[in-house]
Amino acid sequence: MADPRFFSRAGPFSLGELAMRCGASLADAGLAARMVSDVASLDQAGPEQLSFLDNPKYVAALPSTRAGACILHEKHAAAAPAGLALLLSPNPYLSYARAAQLFYPAPPAVPGRHASAVVDPAARIGADVAIGPHVVIGAGAEIGDRVSVGAGSVIGMGVVVGADSRIGPSVTLSHCLIGARVTLHTGVRIGQDGFGFAPDAAGHVKVPQLGRVLVGDDCEIGANTTIDRGAGPDTVIGPGCWIDNLVQIGHNVTLGRGCIIVAQAGVAGSTQLGDFVVLAAQSGVAGHLKIGAGARVGAKSGIMTDIPAGESHFGIPATRVKDYFRQIATLRRLAQKKGGPHD
Amino acid sequence: MADPRFFSRAGPFSLGELAMRCGASLADAGLAARMVSDVASLDQAGPEQLSFLDNPKYVAALPSTRAGACILHEKHAAAAPAGLALLLSPNPYLSYARAAQLFYPAPPAVPGRHASAVVDPAARIGADVAIGPHVVIGAGAEIGDRVSVGAGSVIGMGVVVGADSRIGPSVTLSHCLIGARVTLHTGVRIGQDGFGFAPDAAGHVKVPQLGRVLVGDDCEIGANTTIDRGAGPDTVIGPGCWIDNLVQIGHNVTLGRGCIIVAQAGVAGSTQLGDFVVLAAQSGVAGHLKIGAGARVGAKSGIMTDIPAGESHFGIPATRVKDYFRQIATLRRLAQKKGGPHD
Amino acid sequence: MADPRFFSRAGPFSLGELAMRCGASLADAGLAARMVSDVASLDQAGPEQLSFLDNPKYVAALPSTRAGACILHEKHAAAAPAGLALLLSPNPYLSYARAAQLFYPAPPAVPGRHASAVVDPAARIGADVAIGPHVVIGAGAEIGDRVSVGAGSVIGMGVVVGADSRIGPSVTLSHCLIGARVTLHTGVRIGQDGFGFAPDAAGHVKVPQLGRVLVGDDCEIGANTTIDRGAGPDTVIGPGCWIDNLVQIGHNVTLGRGCIIVAQAGVAGSTQLGDFVVLAAQSGVAGHLKIGAGARVGAKSGIMTDIPAGESHFGIPATRVKDYFRQIATLRRLAQKKGGPHD
Repeated sequence: MADPRFFSRAGPFSLGELAMRCGASLADAGLAARMVSDVASLDQAGPEQLSFLDNPKYVAALPSTRAGACILHEKHAAAAPAGLALLLSPNPYLSYARAAQLFYPAPPAVPGRHASAVVDPAARIGADVAIGPHVVIGAGAEIGDRVSVGAGSVIGMGVVVGADSRIGPSVTLSHCLIGARVTLHTGVRIGQDGFGFAPDAAGHVKVPQLGRVLVGDDCEIGANTTIDRGAGPDTVIGPGCWIDNLVQIGHNVTLGRGCIIVAQAGVAGSTQLGDFVVLAAQSGVAGHLKIGAGARVGAKSGIMTDIPAGESHFGIPATRVKDYFRQIATLRRLAQKKGGPHD
Repeated sequence: MADPRFFSRAGPFSLGELAMRCGASLADAGLAARMVSDVASLDQAGPEQLSFLDNPKYVAALPSTRAGACILHEKHAAAAPAGLALLLSPNPYLSYARAAQLFYPAPPAVPGRHASAVVDPAARIGADVAIGPHVVIGAGAEIGDRVSVGAGSVIGMGVVVGADSRIGPSVTLSHCLIGARVTLHTGVRIGQDGFGFAPDAAGHVKVPQLGRVLVGDDCEIGANTTIDRGAGPDTVIGPGCWIDNLVQIGHNVTLGRGCIIVAQAGVAGSTQLGDFVVLAAQSGVAGHLKIGAGARVGAKSGIMTDIPAGESHFGIPATRVKDYFRQIATLRRLAQKKGGPHD
Repeated sequence: MADPRFFSRAGPFSLGELAMRCGASLADAGLAARMVSDVASLDQAGPEQLSFLDNPKYVAALPSTRAGACILHEKHAAAAPAGLALLLSPNPYLSYARAAQLFYPAPPAVPGRHASAVVDPAARIGADVAIGPHVVIGAGAEIGDRVSVGAGSVIGMGVVVGADSRIGPSVTLSHCLIGARVTLHTGVRIGQDGFGFAPDAAGHVKVPQLGRVLVGDDCEIGANTTIDRGAGPDTVIGPGCWIDNLVQIGHNVTLGRGCIIVAQAGVAGSTQLGDFVVLAAQSGVAGHLKIGAGARVGAKSGIMTDIPAGESHFGIPATRVKDYFRQIATLRRLAQKKGGPHD
């Protein structure tokens, strides 16, 4: 179903294997040998395809699906049509992610170095590394085993990239140590100077930026996102962080593990995010703040104070979500009121 | 007048020809043979130059202009000085755009393939295509006739680019089908993975992104803008859309025809915009919404609900423009009030 | 202390030389010959290192520092521990910036032209220019003495770059004149078309963008920032401006000298900023406005009207900072009130 110009499909797989490999259990063990050949949405899937139900909004589509099998939560099993093989999972979307990865594994990097790449003799290149056309790798860089580097990417002097990382095209890296199994999408910029200078009417004076960027294992960083290196301390992206497109991370910022930073958000210098913090799209966090573990920041919000662990904040300047929406409701009532206090 | 290092001027043109080709009519048909050699603003133009009046703010500059000719609306003709040739147009800015295109046509792509370009033998390259230095084109890609591809751009496996499209330098394309007469400015990123994963404390799990990006004919997309491919369905940019710089378009988003998305705006996953929707600068639209045809979103606004066709919304969260400014006015009055209800 | 994979340290320097070169005076002239070998923060520095105290928040760290020398304001001298050599400065951060530049000077560009670079024979290249791999320089371009051009950057036809400027990797320049001693970080886009078109239901019509971008001396421009060329007039960045990452500057905008534009901010077309204007992160200024010299715009603010010189504005739409926070306080009180006017 996915366009074969762009995607190669693996499989088919038996339901028994799929259940085992994606953390689900087959409701009818007798169907373990049934084969499915692809994934598809509930309304698009046919008898040879595997679908899933996660968002309750789509329960209505379940009775009429023509899919051969479906990953879903036990509580929705009763609504399934006869003949549909059920793969029960406590987390259907997670199970679907694993199943879809089986059918559409990331294309393997083809080891080799394109003739047009410029690799410094003093760079250390691991085994089975794929280096694309027009790539540049500087002296002292260390590229781990099975890393792929997309066309036109520039890896500066001394940069370290961990094993099995995938670097897209047109990426530039300097002054950074990248972990293993990291994905950097096209146009990512890591390690350039932070925005550090002493303001002066006779001409602002640059403060040398003497730190690095450390990116933990298993991170994914989106297209055209920029992460500046530290001014003295390092900028740190914890393991397992997912960062979307066009995000800005300032110097000395530290992110804990598993943070989620959505598109066009920004974090100003020296701010610290705990583990699993979520910053929604276009939000911003001022500098020198502490955002506690598990805190959530709403889209477009502007954070000007610390946030305790686990809280959700929204607005500019942001407050607790509940307070913010109460303020909005109050203002709307006052504005609609005739004969109100402002007349 | 434009710097000849950067621009080549065509012409001169007769007023008769200009009127015909830019949708205007000459107020004095006897001036059809008068020649003009360039375009310029009302205050800068001389006797051999063509100017225009569109924004009413500049009516005051009309009586004293030294221009030889001026495109303007009939209603402003009376304010014109004697000797100024008038090209009457119901839409002077549109007519000016066409006239300026005659004097300064887009420079023709010079067909050819730079020796440093890496073009897969299994790519299909049309007639009169211009491929710049260090370009990379992957297997199975199809590049239409008269397309130009700027230096260092990377066109992935299977990508299709329609005839007469212009791709700037440092663009990366993957998993996408680009229409005809499309302009992609420098640093555009199209077709990379959407931000799709199943959150999990043991490590977020990527959901393979199995869709494409379809860009319609006659679109223009600005520098460093990012458009992610669909998760299963496609991301669709309708024909004739104009997208500015540093814009983010999430996976599965669909734009109708002629939408205008101004700089640094963002559209989250699976949202649908009808025809001719306008998103002003730095605005954001949350995911899974429907924005009706002709709707307008104000600068910096945050859209959290559907917008009916034709409405203008503003604010965070956004409401109808009129309601928003009434709320602002109410709040300002209350804050200024002494002895008000909050004292 | 800085990672030697990425940084080369100069020195050691005597305190006498440091004081002289960074605008400080040694409190005890008898220590002029004492040598220090590096810079470090107050809590990290050892006896051979130079530290500094600028932010009053760190005064508490002064008595226990092990640093050998410290740049600080005279008013903090009394809190210094015995044995610490004091370099007194009216602006300690500025003095520190100069000292750090001595220890960590920008690495010199290594003159030469990589064999893979494509330089048009009709480009004029100055003395001691460093041209990296896969660079492209067009006909008629003029590159000043001692300029460095990073790998994969594309400098278009006719572009001028002043002496001693540093252009990072993956930068694209067209239709622009860049001053001397300018730093352009990776992914900067300067001179592409502005967002100019005549809207039309039959298809928006491009208005040729016939101006240039003029960047003054001593500017610094951050990663993936975009600056469009003028529509007819030029886009002008005054000397000594510091622009952070992912900033958008629209066509015809003019910035005075020494402006500071923080990450993800945007300035819409034809707006004029006076000298030393500060736009904080994620702020936006609408088009055709005048922002007076020394004005300051708060983070995430949306400017919809002119700002007089020297004023600070905040909010969406923005007002004077004091008024905005009074409004916020008023709204919070009203929302908390029981039995208030909205019940």
